[in-house]
Amino acid sequence: MEKNIKTKLKTKPIFILPTRVYYQDTDAGGVVYHSTYLNFMERARYEWMRGLDLDIKSLAQIHRVIFMIRSLNIEYFKPAILDDLLHVTVQNTELGKARITILQHVLRGQITLASATIQVVCVGADTLKLASLPISLRHKFGN
Amino acid sequence: MEKNIKTKLKTKPIFILPTRVYYQDTDAGGVVYHSTYLNFMERARYEWMRGLDLDIKSLAQIHRVIFMIRSLNIEYFKPAILDDLLHVTVQNTELGKARITILQHVLRGQITLASATIQVVCVGADTLKLASLPISLRHKFGN
Amino acid sequence: MEKNIKTKLKTKPIFILPTRVYYQDTDAGGVVYHSTYLNFMERARYEWMRGLDLDIKSLAQIHRVIFMIRSLNIEYFKPAILDDLLHVTVQNTELGKARITILQHVLRGQITLASATIQVVCVGADTLKLASLPISLRHKFGN
Amino acid sequence: MEKNIKTKLKTKPIFILPTRVYYQDTDAGGVVYHSTYLNFMERARYEWMRGLDLDIKSLAQIHRVIFMIRSLNIEYFKPAILDDLLHVTVQNTELGKARITILQHVLRGQITLASATIQVVCVGADTLKLASLPISLRHKFGN
Repeated sequence: MEKNIKTKLKTKPIFILPTRVYYQDTDAGGVVYHSTYLNFMERARYEWMRGLDLDIKSLAQIHRVIFMIRSLNIEYFKPAILDDLLHVTVQNTELGKARITILQHVLRGQITLASATIQVVCVGADTLKLASLPISLRHKFGN
Repeated sequence: MEKNIKTKLKTKPIFILPTRVYYQDTDAGGVVYHSTYLNFMERARYEWMRGLDLDIKSLAQIHRVIFMIRSLNIEYFKPAILDDLLHVTVQNTELGKARITILQHVLRGQITLASATIQVVCVGADTLKLASLPISLRHKFGN
Repeated sequence: MEKNIKTKLKTKPIFILPTRVYYQDTDAGGVVYHSTYLNFMERARYEWMRGLDLDIKSLAQIHRVIFMIRSLNIEYFKPAILDDLLHVTVQNTELGKARITILQHVLRGQITLASATIQVVCVGADTLKLASLPISLRHKFGN
Repeated sequence: MEKNIKTKLKTKPIFILPTRVYYQDTDAGGVVYHSTYLNFMERARYEWMRGLDLDIKSLAQIHRVIFMIRSLNIEYFKPAILDDLLHVTVQNTELGKARITILQHVLRGQITLASATIQVVCVGADTLKLASLPISLRHKFGN
């Protein structure tokens, strides 16, 4: 069922958020702590959604839905370090009935430091159970 | 007014929570990141309150109050490092009508690495305005 | 080459670390923030290695190797919330020449809230390039 | 001794860093977690120093000094919440031989949500003991 509605997005615009590495992002290994990349990625997804006029508060209050991460697959290629200026990308690669697949990269210049594929699901704000993404919101994701 | 009810607690039992330093707690300077001490301290206060049978959920749901930090004064003496086994203390030094003063230390063995004085206030769960600490809870703090 | 040395571990003892959910672990959605699960898991891996007598400092200073996360695949089934007592498991499922595959679960009672498969690699402390896991350390991982 | 060199800075330019509140910054109380304000403040101090051409790496490698927080006094007036656009200020109010006093505010529009006074000390990168701020750096702080 979900397959029918699922769409391989043809045009995949890339949103990019620049972010600086501060002490709070690093660990005693001298590099960015591995879970911090997920925080960088959340910031980028959040700003990407704001740019799509998808306000978190309206989603919860008007549409009664929230987005939750269902799974996350991240690869670490090279470590980011203190003072790095990173660029965190967001690309919506697939849109299901209640699922969104997002591809994200953390770049330093031309070098990809980390990549992640993230499955986000739409759930009822009260039930926390899978809910269809409201039609009025679907087009904002490029559909 | 508040002064009348304020009590310098005579007996000041000390609650102690042991905590290990992991990579997530450190920064590229090779030491525990300065705001992480506040996280260690929250854990200790939380366990201290659980030990006093002050359940956060009951507080909010039954008594309709929550605790918020009003101010915090911390001194850093020596840095904690990766793998340290720390002891975080909690001591309730003063109990006002709606305020609690708490003294906390972070120790490595006999050495005090950091000390903080924290003013916690009791506020209405709905109003977020200052509210008297319910009488039935006061005695749990030793009054 | 690595295949020859790779061993599907027959006995896979499970290490378990209990951990409480504090405010610092949660977000405004009322649940544990998704990257915090990775922090819980690091704590469990760290304590598991300490239990195997694999001291992080000796590794870096004597053996001149450090462990880095190469990839991480996590699934979120149900959210953990404030005050939950969680159990975080660690299981070493595969041991390569320079790679370790680790399976981790975050449990609340009998319920699995999240599961992750983590690829850890052994790299030279100076080079940050892939390095064989020292023989003297291999047996500690059950080989 | 230190008093002689200490200078009440007459002109106190204010550096301002805008910062958005994301889920990672909040807790289950629905507000920004109290230690997160310290992270916001570190980001602002770091960018302020970059703006003064005080590169952290040069400081450590060339001048062999690092800055550490000696004490921090923070007051919380009103909570920041998800999606807030905050402005974090930095003001250097006093410059000692080896100490810098910094005043920071977290603002939402015209409202001050939190204020902190932070004592930063200059220590030897190797000794971690108090060291005079190099003369060549002093003027960058406005002296």
